[in-house]
Amino acid sequence: MLNALPDLTDPTAVLQRLVHCPSVTPDDAGALATLEQLLLPLGFAVARPVFTEAGTADIANLFARSGTAGPHLTFAGHTDVVPPGNTADWKHPPFSGIIEDGELYGRGAVDMKGGIACFVAALARHHARGGLPPGQVSLLITGDEEGPAVNGTVKLLAWAAERGEKFDACVVGEPTNPAALGDMIKIGRRGSLSGTVTVRGVQGHVAYPHLADNPVRGLMALMDALLAEPLDSGNDRFQASNLEITALDTFGNVSTNVIPGRASASFNIRFNDEWTPESLSAEIERRLALAAGNRRWRGERDEPLAFDVAFRPNPSDAFLTSDAALTKALSEAVQSVTGRVPALSTSGGTSDARFIKDHCPVVEFGLVGKTMHMSNERVALSDLETLTEIYDAFIARWFAAHA
Amino acid sequence: MLNALPDLTDPTAVLQRLVHCPSVTPDDAGALATLEQLLLPLGFAVARPVFTEAGTADIANLFARSGTAGPHLTFAGHTDVVPPGNTADWKHPPFSGIIEDGELYGRGAVDMKGGIACFVAALARHHARGGLPPGQVSLLITGDEEGPAVNGTVKLLAWAAERGEKFDACVVGEPTNPAALGDMIKIGRRGSLSGTVTVRGVQGHVAYPHLADNPVRGLMALMDALLAEPLDSGNDRFQASNLEITALDTFGNVSTNVIPGRASASFNIRFNDEWTPESLSAEIERRLALAAGNRRWRGERDEPLAFDVAFRPNPSDAFLTSDAALTKALSEAVQSVTGRVPALSTSGGTSDARFIKDHCPVVEFGLVGKTMHMSNERVALSDLETLTEIYDAFIARWFAAHA
Ligand SMILES: [Zn+2]
Ligand SMILES: [Zn+2]
Repeated sequence: MLNALPDLTDPTAVLQRLVHCPSVTPDDAGALATLEQLLLPLGFAVARPVFTEAGTADIANLFARSGTAGPHLTFAGHTDVVPPGNTADWKHPPFSGIIEDGELYGRGAVDMKGGIACFVAALARHHARGGLPPGQVSLLITGDEEGPAVNGTVKLLAWAAERGEKFDACVVGEPTNPAALGDMIKIGRRGSLSGTVTVRGVQGHVAYPHLADNPVRGLMALMDALLAEPLDSGNDRFQASNLEITALDTFGNVSTNVIPGRASASFNIRFNDEWTPESLSAEIERRLALAAGNRRWRGERDEPLAFDVAFRPNPSDAFLTSDAALTKALSEAVQSVTGRVPALSTSGGTSDARFIKDHCPVVEFGLVGKTMHMSNERVALSDLETLTEIYDAFIARWFAAHA
Repeated sequence: MLNALPDLTDPTAVLQRLVHCPSVTPDDAGALATLEQLLLPLGFAVARPVFTEAGTADIANLFARSGTAGPHLTFAGHTDVVPPGNTADWKHPPFSGIIEDGELYGRGAVDMKGGIACFVAALARHHARGGLPPGQVSLLITGDEEGPAVNGTVKLLAWAAERGEKFDACVVGEPTNPAALGDMIKIGRRGSLSGTVTVRGVQGHVAYPHLADNPVRGLMALMDALLAEPLDSGNDRFQASNLEITALDTFGNVSTNVIPGRASASFNIRFNDEWTPESLSAEIERRLALAAGNRRWRGERDEPLAFDVAFRPNPSDAFLTSDAALTKALSEAVQSVTGRVPALSTSGGTSDARFIKDHCPVVEFGLVGKTMHMSNERVALSDLETLTEIYDAFIARWFAAHA
C-alpha cells in the first residue's frame, strides 16, 4: 500500500478506500488486498485463496481470523459489485467515493462495501479500547456474490471447513433495511426454484391448422394450472409462496403465417418453509400433469398434451435461523443504538446466507438498500456511523452471551 | 435466345426452359425474357414493365395479349420462386429441370412455372389448330408473388387498367389440388388479418412482486378472450373463421429473477365472408376490452388492464367468385379431361386472387401442391399433360360461352 492507513475507527475513511477499487465481478481490482492491509493492524491473520473452475473466471476471496479458541463469531460479505451502468447517469464517478451533502457516492456504497467498512471500524474500536472479547472473530469475504457465485462463498466455506474452522454464528452485512437503519433484521430467507415448461406441438401454416398443432393453447392451460391456486397462504414466519412467469418464448417464430412448433413459459417461485425444492417441484409436476390430462380447450385432440418441465439446478431452500440468542443479541444492539425495534423478517431475495446456514446459525443486518444496484448508489455518513455502533454493540453482546 | 425454341405444345419442354432460370424473388434471372420469347411466336404482344418503390427491390413483370376486341380472358401467375434451401437436400440441382421416373425436378415445378408452362402449351395447341377463339387472351405474370408483393400483381393490374385493359374473367394458375389433379378449384379465399396484443406491466424483481406488475397474467386473460368463443361456425361457402396465436414475446427477459415489463401475443385470423377486416378487428377489440375490464386473476389490482392491439396494415378480404359461368366452364373442363368432379373450395391460404377480384371474377386451378416450397419440388409429366388439356378445353368452353 502506497497510501498511509486511514483512521480505522472511521467507517467513511475505510469505505472510501474500498470504493476506489473498481471491483466489478469477476475483477478484484485490489479490493481484497486493501481489506487485508486494513485488517493486519487489528491483529488479524489473513488468507486470500483464489478459487477456479473450468468455464468460469478465477475469483479472489479472503478469510481473516483473530483469536484461536473460544466462541467463534464470523462476518460474511462480498467486495464485488454490479457494473455501474451508464456513467453519465451518475452525479459523481462511480468509483470516486466523493462525499456531497453528507452522503458518500459509489458503486458498492451500500451493497456492500459499506457493511464491511462498518464491521472493520467496529473491530478497530474494540481494538482501540483494549482488544476484542476473548474468543474468535473472523471475516468470510468473497468476490463472487453478484456474479455466478460459483467460486465464492460456497467454496470459501468448504475451504475454511477443511482447515478446521468452526463457526458458532454468522452475521451477513448485506443491506437489509428497506427505508431507514433499524428497520429490519433478516432471520431467514425464502427458497427459490426456477423452471421452464415447454409444450411441443406441430409447426404448420396458419391456413391449414388441422395439419398443425398449435402449442400455445396447451401452454396457456399449463400456465393457468400453475397460477390458479395459491401454493399456500403463508405463516407467522414467512409470506405466502409466490410464482411468477418470467418469460414466454415461441422460439423465433416471427412469420404471421406460421403456427409455432413449440412454446415455453419460464417461471420462478419464491417459497416458504412449508416446502422443500423437492416437494415443490413435485407439486408443480402434479399440477402440470393434471392440466395436461384435462386438455380442455376446443377439444380438437383427444390425447393428453405433450409437455416437459425442466427445473434449473441448485435451487435454494427456505430457512429460518433457530438461534434465539443470536437474533436477540443483534436485535438488542439495534435497539440500544437506534431506539427502534427491528422487524425480524424472511422477506426479499436470496443471499449467500442460504449457503452459510448449512454451517452455523446466520442472521443478516446491514445498511439501507434503497439505492443498491442503481445509478448514484450512496450512503449517508450518519448511517455508516450508526451501523458501526450497532456492530460494535453486537460484538460485545454476543460474546457476553457466550462467555 | 441462343437456344432454338422448344416444341411449344409440349408443357415439359416449356417448363424446363423456365426452371433453368434461378428466379428466386426478387431476381428475374431471365425468366420473363424466356416467357416473352415463347409467347411471341404465338402472336402475343408482350410488355415487360419494371415496378419500383423506395425500400424494395425493382421487380420485372410481364403483360402479354392476343386479340384486340371481344371477350377478354386473362391468366395470372408468377415466375418468381422461393429459395431452394439446402441444395444438398435435393436429389437433382434445384434449377436443373432434370426428369427421373416420369417426374421433373425443380424449384417452381408446381409453384408455379408448371402452371404457366401448361397454359402456354394450351395456347400453342389452339394456335396449331388454327388460332385462338375470337376475342382476347392475356397473361398477367409477376416476379413478386413469393416476396413482399409490393411491385407485383397490384401494380401490374393498375398498369393494365391505365392502358384501358378490361378483363372479363381470370384464372390463376397456382397449385390448387391437394393430392391429385382434378381435386379442387378455388372459387374464393378467406381473408387474413394479423395483429399483436401487448400488455404493459411494471418490471421488477421476482422477490418483490408487490412492487411490480406481471403482464403475463393479463396477457393470458386476453388470449383466453380471443380463443374462448368461435368467431363463427362457417357456412356452405366457407369454413369457420379461425384464430391462431403465432408468437409470444417477453422482449428479451432472460433473467429468472426479473418480472418482465411487457408481454405480447401475435395472432393471425383466417376469416370467411361473414366478416370484413373492419368488422373483425372491431370484434377483436371488443373481446379484448371486455376481458381487460373484467381482469379476473388473483384480484391484486382494481384498475382495468392496460393493453394495446396493433393490426398489421393491408389485411385481405374474404371473397367468393360470383361468376357462375366461369366456374362452370372450368369445372366442366376438369371433368371432361379427368372424369372427376372438382370440389369448389375457399380453403387454404391467400393468393394474388385477392387483388384480381377487384378487377374481374377470378377462379384458381393449377397443379398438385404437395411438394411446393419443399426440397425436391417436382411435377409428374402426366400431370403437365393433363393440366394442358384442361386449360385447352377451358379456353374453348369459356369463349364458346361468351361467343
Ligand atoms: Zn450484496
Ligand atoms: Zn405460388
